[in-house]
Amino acid sequence: MSEAVLSQILATLVDLKTNQQQLADKVDKLQSEVDKDDHLLPHKAARYHNSPVDIILADQPILNLALTGKEVREKERAPAQKRHSDSDGDTIVSPTFTTNRSTEQAGPYTDKPVLTTYPSQKGVKPFKMDWGAADPQVRGPVVASHLANSINIRNAIGAYGGSYSIYRSLAVAMGDLPADHKPNFDYTQPPVKIAQQPQWSDPTKIVSLDPFGHLTSQYFKSEIEEQGIDIRPTIAITRAHMLVPELQNEIKDGSMRVDGKVIVSETGEINVHKAAVDPVWFLPGVAARLNVEEELLRRSLYENTGGMYPELISRPDLKVFLPPIGGLTVYIFGNHELLSDPNTRLTVRVHDECNGSDVFGSDICTCRPYLIYGMKESIKEAQDGGVGLIVYFRKEGRALGEVTKYLVYNARKRAGDSAAKYFQRTENVAGVKDMRFQALMPDVFHWLGVTKIDRFMSMSNMKHDALVENGIKILERCPIPDELVPPDSKVEMEAKIAAGYFTTGSIPREEDLTHTVGRGWEEFQH
Amino acid sequence: MSEAVLSQILATLVDLKTNQQQLADKVDKLQSEVDKDDHLLPHKAARYHNSPVDIILADQPILNLALTGKEVREKERAPAQKRHSDSDGDTIVSPTFTTNRSTEQAGPYTDKPVLTTYPSQKGVKPFKMDWGAADPQVRGPVVASHLANSINIRNAIGAYGGSYSIYRSLAVAMGDLPADHKPNFDYTQPPVKIAQQPQWSDPTKIVSLDPFGHLTSQYFKSEIEEQGIDIRPTIAITRAHMLVPELQNEIKDGSMRVDGKVIVSETGEINVHKAAVDPVWFLPGVAARLNVEEELLRRSLYENTGGMYPELISRPDLKVFLPPIGGLTVYIFGNHELLSDPNTRLTVRVHDECNGSDVFGSDICTCRPYLIYGMKESIKEAQDGGVGLIVYFRKEGRALGEVTKYLVYNARKRAGDSAAKYFQRTENVAGVKDMRFQALMPDVFHWLGVTKIDRFMSMSNMKHDALVENGIKILERCPIPDELVPPDSKVEMEAKIAAGYFTTGSIPREEDLTHTVGRGWEEFQH
Repeated sequence: MSEAVLSQILATLVDLKTNQQQLADKVDKLQSEVDKDDHLLPHKAARYHNSPVDIILADQPILNLALTGKEVREKERAPAQKRHSDSDGDTIVSPTFTTNRSTEQAGPYTDKPVLTTYPSQKGVKPFKMDWGAADPQVRGPVVASHLANSINIRNAIGAYGGSYSIYRSLAVAMGDLPADHKPNFDYTQPPVKIAQQPQWSDPTKIVSLDPFGHLTSQYFKSEIEEQGIDIRPTIAITRAHMLVPELQNEIKDGSMRVDGKVIVSETGEINVHKAAVDPVWFLPGVAARLNVEEELLRRSLYENTGGMYPELISRPDLKVFLPPIGGLTVYIFGNHELLSDPNTRLTVRVHDECNGSDVFGSDICTCRPYLIYGMKESIKEAQDGGVGLIVYFRKEGRALGEVTKYLVYNARKRAGDSAAKYFQRTENVAGVKDMRFQALMPDVFHWLGVTKIDRFMSMSNMKHDALVENGIKILERCPIPDELVPPDSKVEMEAKIAAGYFTTGSIPREEDLTHTVGRGWEEFQH
Repeated sequence: MSEAVLSQILATLVDLKTNQQQLADKVDKLQSEVDKDDHLLPHKAARYHNSPVDIILADQPILNLALTGKEVREKERAPAQKRHSDSDGDTIVSPTFTTNRSTEQAGPYTDKPVLTTYPSQKGVKPFKMDWGAADPQVRGPVVASHLANSINIRNAIGAYGGSYSIYRSLAVAMGDLPADHKPNFDYTQPPVKIAQQPQWSDPTKIVSLDPFGHLTSQYFKSEIEEQGIDIRPTIAITRAHMLVPELQNEIKDGSMRVDGKVIVSETGEINVHKAAVDPVWFLPGVAARLNVEEELLRRSLYENTGGMYPELISRPDLKVFLPPIGGLTVYIFGNHELLSDPNTRLTVRVHDECNGSDVFGSDICTCRPYLIYGMKESIKEAQDGGVGLIVYFRKEGRALGEVTKYLVYNARKRAGDSAAKYFQRTENVAGVKDMRFQALMPDVFHWLGVTKIDRFMSMSNMKHDALVENGIKILERCPIPDELVPPDSKVEMEAKIAAGYFTTGSIPREEDLTHTVGRGWEEFQH
């Protein structure tokens, strides 16, 4: 063996050692960067054995979990819960709720909040959902609950009850409501049957409510009772008697008659069935209806709400969203079973909430007068053997809210209130003249099985067009009678007619619009 | 050179090789973990030079930014914007909006959504906010906007307009509203002055609304116009004429008189000032009022809403939250300037929304009758030189929402509707009998400078106690007269009185409650 060869071996060894040291340094650096990520950022960590990729705040211990206001009640602690297993046999536990509280953990929550979730997380197995399926078992329930047995199998973003979940939050924080409270739905089922319609299984016809929303306790009984999943109704149906002062006056005047079925007493009691419907948005369907990409819809919802529900972005696999906006209420006069019968006459008013007029009788618009007129005609239709229908949407101030509405009123009054400038005032403040977007409105008609409306008690071209475009025929459009229009609301009325609202009268020319003016501020000085 | 040495060299080489293999395995493992993080998770990355720790989705290109519905209007593109600099001189740009759109980027948003933010992020400099300061410049504006010049200096979680930001999202997605639209508030200022009160600068007295919310355009003019910050009013004040059918009947009957100031015409037009108020929660103050820790309040809000606003958790430095719940409306009859004058008589009704009764006259409760009675007495007080005040809160169905309310109705009717079981039915479904939490209600009285109420048109012990505990005197409590109580709502009335509601009559004993029963379903069969 030559000296030269040995030297080569040594040199190679030295090189190897040097390279190895460099490699080791690189590994250390890489490790420290990963550690740094751990320090600064939410990161992958198996804090819960079932959710290795939960996003958590690593070392911002911002949560003091001791309930100071009230002691957590004993019955809240360590509730006996049935547990799910996923297909691997892993027990799925909630990343949010402590199911097995240690003595030092007094609050209802774990110490690691999950800031958002991802589709590929271990343990995350959304309940099967086939929107538009006719069989409710195939369609699957809408699961939005974050309770222990439901959070990982959720198939919806948001919360049951929408906005009202904020109040639920206060109740839980104050210790008035156990964090793991599950409702008892005994005796709450609808008193009448809204029969399943072919429209329920057309995924393009209903995209903004759950057609099975009133039947959850019935169709998903075993999921609720045996599997312990928290599934709540998004629709409730009840019956009631109504007393409406304007209609009581009409009865007294003899303009309306007591028939014992619809109007049941001389005092004016009206028999009605009603349904409260919370919004349930199937996002691909909503996007299609609005003619936008689903991804853009999700991003816009996320950004314009100031970052509400990051799962709109991070969970493209969850197709259903329960937006925290007001829902709608349906009032049915007459036999609800005839709603889907094309041979039965149907009178309809679609009304968007206007609290200032509907409750307080503000005379700047025609909202309550038109609503009452719609009610009267609907009731008369029912008395004549047809059906009457009022659909009341919680979209205050053209879905701009009451603060914006009042700002617009001021601009109108202060800067000269004319029909010509009516919409411009709203656009200045809100950027658009109307945000009600009637495109989703027809869904409730499909839910009820309505295919044609005999008398449509509305002048809105937007409501009319949305219904017709969604396949619902409208035979007659009924403007509000002139004598019901308060003088100061003529500005609104003429502006709307010029913009395309239906009228049986004349359409004002542009120069006419400048002559239709409302009261200015000075006339308020009494 | 001995054979032994050569053997040592060989052994060392073998060790080296083994170690190197282990090291290589470690590198591969580390790399795969980093790759997995990249793939699955948001991670630290300097995608924006000002936000090195933004949480972004690295490679889930879920956003197709081409606006397909409508072309983005030319005027939306690359708006001329003033830019902020932070104290380091760095230009602060929005991590959300594209201010300098390239040709391939057609949508309004960057391709990297930010899923939540952290206090220590570079560029994040919340606008100074000293809640409870008397000087609005010291207090600072409430900045909730995510527009380019505002997002990094936001000092509030949520969105202007609360729930209605959902509709704004649709408008932006559809291309009807430019994503960077800023309202024009010309001519929108209040027609009357609600004078600043000492209560505005007591941080414990007002925690759920912004006392300067109607004066943003005035007090923060330079921030809005010169610095380009998007600051919006959360209160709007206007005036109106009202026509209320029950009161029109009273005028016709001669029970109410036309005075030309409050009731201005024989047709019954009523002169009123009104204010719409959006909720603005100062979280430490709200927590203190509810007697819970702020951290628990934030966590409970986050969890019970299904993960709404992760900034409730990740941004403990942001103390203000605009919850997406309904606000309140104030109706003032008479001279608003006298509201804070302890020598002026004041009649008040605090009313929580009940759409079924307030608008549709359902006879199962006393809501509309009590509201109208409160209005009548308030108007009469104003006619006698005092002031009348109605405060209308959007808390449908005891803040449980209308779906829950109808479920409870069904359970009551179906399982025997008696006063004895009245609250139990609600507790079964909702877990609590009431979620209205009147603790925050008194704020609006402090805003108006009210220190005492002469006549309080409510029997609610919860409303009464909340006002009194917050330092507002109540001299007389006025129950609804018996003749205004619809027969079917006697169940509710007796149950409430037994539970502590105020009455001038007798308090029912427990055995009496079982005898006060409502209509069952069978009576609805007409």
